[in-house]
Amino acid sequence: MTEGPPERPRQVGLGTSRLETLTDGIFAIAMTLLVLNLQVPQIPAALVTGRLPHALLDLWPKLLSYALSFVVVGVYWVGHHNQFHYIRRADRPFIWMNILFLMCIAFIPFSAALLGAYVHARIAVGIYGLNLVVVGAALYLIWWYATADHRLVDPDLAPTVVQAGGRRVLVGVVVYLLAVLLSLLSTVLSVALYIAVPILYILPGRIDRHVMGRLTPGAPDGERIPPGTASSQE
Amino acid sequence: MTEGPPERPRQVGLGTSRLETLTDGIFAIAMTLLVLNLQVPQIPAALVTGRLPHALLDLWPKLLSYALSFVVVGVYWVGHHNQFHYIRRADRPFIWMNILFLMCIAFIPFSAALLGAYVHARIAVGIYGLNLVVVGAALYLIWWYATADHRLVDPDLAPTVVQAGGRRVLVGVVVYLLAVLLSLLSTVLSVALYIAVPILYILPGRIDRHVMGRLTPGAPDGERIPPGTASSQE
Amino acid sequence: MTEGPPERPRQVGLGTSRLETLTDGIFAIAMTLLVLNLQVPQIPAALVTGRLPHALLDLWPKLLSYALSFVVVGVYWVGHHNQFHYIRRADRPFIWMNILFLMCIAFIPFSAALLGAYVHARIAVGIYGLNLVVVGAALYLIWWYATADHRLVDPDLAPTVVQAGGRRVLVGVVVYLLAVLLSLLSTVLSVALYIAVPILYILPGRIDRHVMGRLTPGAPDGERIPPGTASSQE
Amino acid sequence: MTEGPPERPRQVGLGTSRLETLTDGIFAIAMTLLVLNLQVPQIPAALVTGRLPHALLDLWPKLLSYALSFVVVGVYWVGHHNQFHYIRRADRPFIWMNILFLMCIAFIPFSAALLGAYVHARIAVGIYGLNLVVVGAALYLIWWYATADHRLVDPDLAPTVVQAGGRRVLVGVVVYLLAVLLSLLSTVLSVALYIAVPILYILPGRIDRHVMGRLTPGAPDGERIPPGTASSQE
Repeated sequence: MTEGPPERPRQVGLGTSRLETLTDGIFAIAMTLLVLNLQVPQIPAALVTGRLPHALLDLWPKLLSYALSFVVVGVYWVGHHNQFHYIRRADRPFIWMNILFLMCIAFIPFSAALLGAYVHARIAVGIYGLNLVVVGAALYLIWWYATADHRLVDPDLAPTVVQAGGRRVLVGVVVYLLAVLLSLLSTVLSVALYIAVPILYILPGRIDRHVMGRLTPGAPDGERIPPGTASSQE
Repeated sequence: MTEGPPERPRQVGLGTSRLETLTDGIFAIAMTLLVLNLQVPQIPAALVTGRLPHALLDLWPKLLSYALSFVVVGVYWVGHHNQFHYIRRADRPFIWMNILFLMCIAFIPFSAALLGAYVHARIAVGIYGLNLVVVGAALYLIWWYATADHRLVDPDLAPTVVQAGGRRVLVGVVVYLLAVLLSLLSTVLSVALYIAVPILYILPGRIDRHVMGRLTPGAPDGERIPPGTASSQE
Repeated sequence: MTEGPPERPRQVGLGTSRLETLTDGIFAIAMTLLVLNLQVPQIPAALVTGRLPHALLDLWPKLLSYALSFVVVGVYWVGHHNQFHYIRRADRPFIWMNILFLMCIAFIPFSAALLGAYVHARIAVGIYGLNLVVVGAALYLIWWYATADHRLVDPDLAPTVVQAGGRRVLVGVVVYLLAVLLSLLSTVLSVALYIAVPILYILPGRIDRHVMGRLTPGAPDGERIPPGTASSQE
Repeated sequence: MTEGPPERPRQVGLGTSRLETLTDGIFAIAMTLLVLNLQVPQIPAALVTGRLPHALLDLWPKLLSYALSFVVVGVYWVGHHNQFHYIRRADRPFIWMNILFLMCIAFIPFSAALLGAYVHARIAVGIYGLNLVVVGAALYLIWWYATADHRLVDPDLAPTVVQAGGRRVLVGVVVYLLAVLLSLLSTVLSVALYIAVPILYILPGRIDRHVMGRLTPGAPDGERIPPGTASSQE
C-alpha cells in the first residue's frame, strides 16, 4: 500500500528536473533558431546558374556566425549541464538566476544575426562578445550562488571542485572581455579570439590537462566526467 | 519477478508528466521565439559605421519588450511549476484548461511584438496587458479547479496553501488589470507597472515575506521550496 | 547488488519513451509556431493612433485560425497521448507511422496560415480540412496497427477499448471529410464545422457521455482517465 | 536504506540522458522548422479565386523538400536513437561529436529551403546532398568512437552488432555521395536517389532483411527492435 511509488515524490520539492527540462528546451531552440539567420538568396530563374554560387559564397559571414554560435552555445550547455551534476536543490533566487541566464542564451540568435550581417562592424562584433560575456558571468553567478556555503550542493563537495569550476567559467568571461576590447583595434582579431575560445574548451591543451589533472575530480568545466564515473557503470 | 516495474505503470493513468513535458516545451519555445521580434537593421554597406549604432539604439522598445516578456513568461512558468508540485492527477477539463492556458502563453510573442513596435500606442499596451490578465486568470482557474474539494490534489493539502496559492495569482491579475486601465491615462505608467509586477514576484519585499511566512508551507507562488524540502535532500 | 538498474534497462529496447519525447516536442513547436502567422501590422508612426485598431481588427481571420488550430492540435495531442497510455512497445513500422503522423502535424502551421490569409477561398478552407483528415487518418492507422492482434498493447486489453478508441478517431475523420465537401457549398459553414468538432471533443454532450459510458474503461478518446485511475492514486 | 534514491544518482555522472533530451529537442525543432519554408502566396483579394490554386501548385518543390527532409531527418533520429540503445556512457569527445552532429542536423532546414527554391540548380541539389553526407559521416563517427574497444558500450556487445550498425550508416553516406556526384549529370536523378534512400531504410526489401537476419540482434540501423525485447515486456 504505502510502498507504491508516487508519481512525483514529495521530498523532491522544487527540484532541478523541470528547470533542466526548460533549460534543455531553450538551449535546443536557441541553437536551432540560429539557422533562420541563413536566408536563401532570391535570384530570378533565368540567372540562377550564374549567380547562385556567388550568392551562396557571400553567405560566409552568416555561415561562420552559425557554426561559431552553435558551438559557443554548446559550450555553455555542457558547462551548465556539468554544474547541475553537482547541484542538488533549487531555491527562489537560484531559479531566477537561471531564467536570467536563459534570457541571455535566447538572445544569442539576435547577436549572431548581427555578427553575420555586419562582421566588419565594431559595434556588431562588440555586442556579440558582450552577449557572451554576460552569459558567462551569469553562469559564474549560478555556480557561485549554488556552492557558497554549499548552499545547493552536497556538503562534502570538495573545495577544489568548487574553485576549478568557477575558474574555468571566469577564464572564458575574461577572454571574451579582452576580445571585446580587441574589437576596437581589429574586428578580425576579435572574431578570431571568439573562435579560439570554444576550441580551447573542446580540445584542452597540455596546460589545461595539467590544471584539470590537479583539480579533479569532475570540475564542472563543461567537458569532463568525474573519474570513477565511467568505471562505476561498466 | 513478475512484479518488475512496467515501463509506464498502469495506475498512473492520465498523469501529469506528459502534460508537464508539453507545457515546458511550449514555455521554452514561447520564451525563445521572443528574440525573433528583434530584427537586424538593414543598412547599406557604405553607411554601416555611421548608422548602425543609432539603428540599434532605436531597437530599445523591442529590447525592453524582449526582456520584460521573457521574465513575465518566466514568472508564469514558475507559478505553473509550483502548482504542479501539489497536483497529483489530471482529468479531462483540467487538461483542457491547461491547453487554453498554453494558448495564451504562446500568444505572448505576438503581444510582445506589438508592444515592441508600438510602445506608445494605447491599444498595443492594452492588448499586451490583457494578454497577461488572461494568462493569469487561466492560471487561477487551473488552481481553483484542481484544489476545489481537493479534486486533483492530496486530500490533506492545507487550506492555507490553497488560499495563498490562489491569492498570489489573483494579485497579479488585478494589478495587470489596473495597468491596462492605466494605459488609458498614460502608456508610460502602464508599462512601468508591467515591469514592476515581475520584480515584485522575483524580489519579495517585507510584506510579501510576512504574508508568505504566515501562509507556508510552499505556497505555489512560483518561488518557494516547501520548508523541509531542502533539508530532506541534504 | 552489482545488478543495480542500468541507466536504461536493456529489456525496454526500442520503447516508446523517446518517441513520446519527440512527439511532445513536435506538438509543442507546431502549436507555438502558429503564432508566427500573426504579423504585427506595419504602420507609419504618424498614423498609428488612427489605423492600428483597424489593422488589428483585420487580423481576425488569423486570430481565428490561431485559436482553432491550437485547439485542434491539442485534441490530436490528447488523442495520441491517450493511445500511448495503452501502447507498450514500438516496432519499425509503428515508429514510421508516428513520424508520418508528426509530419502531418508539423504541416498544420502552413495550413493554418493559408486559412488565416484566405478564409473565404474554397481551396484554402479545403486544404486546411484535408490536413486534419490526413492527421486523423494517420492517428487511426497508428491505433489500428498497435491494437490489431494486440500487437503492441497488453494482451488483455479489452476489445471495447480498442473499438471505442478507433471509433472516436474515425468520427473526427468523417466529420472533417464532410466539412471539406461542405466547403464547395459554403466556406463559412465549413469553417463552422471545423470549429464545432473540437468543441464536441472537449465538451462531450449527453449522447457522447452515453456512448462512452457503455464503452469504458478508458477509451483512448483523448479526454478520459480510465475509471479507477484517479481513485488508485488518492 | 531510508536515504532513498537521490534525485540524480551520483554514479550516472555525465550520463547520456540530458544529451538525449537536447538531441530530441533539436531534432523536433529542426523537423518542425521545415514548414517555415512553405510561404503562403501573397495574392490580391480580387484575384484569389483565379490565382491561388496555381500559386499553390507552384509550391510543389517546397512541398517535396518538406516531405523528403522530414523523413530524412526522421531516419537520422531513429538511427541516433538506436545507437543510444547500446551506448552507456558519455565522455568529452563523445559529447562534442554529438553537438557537431546536431549542428549538421540543425542546418538541414537551410539546405531544404535551398533545394525547395532551386530544385533544378546543381549547386542547390549538391549542397543538400552534401549536408546529408556530412550528417551520416558524423553519425558514423559517433558509432565508431563509442564502440572502438567498447569505449562507451557494454563490454559484451557483439561485434556483429558493431559492424552491422556501422555498415548501415556507411551505406547511406556512400549512396548520398553518389547522388551528389550524379547531380552533375542530372539533378532529377539525383533528387530521385535522395528520395529512394529513406524509402529503402523504412521499407526494407528482401536483401536488406536477409542481411539484417544474419547480423542481428538489434543492429542500430534505426529501425529494429532487438529480438526478445518485445516478448520480454509481454
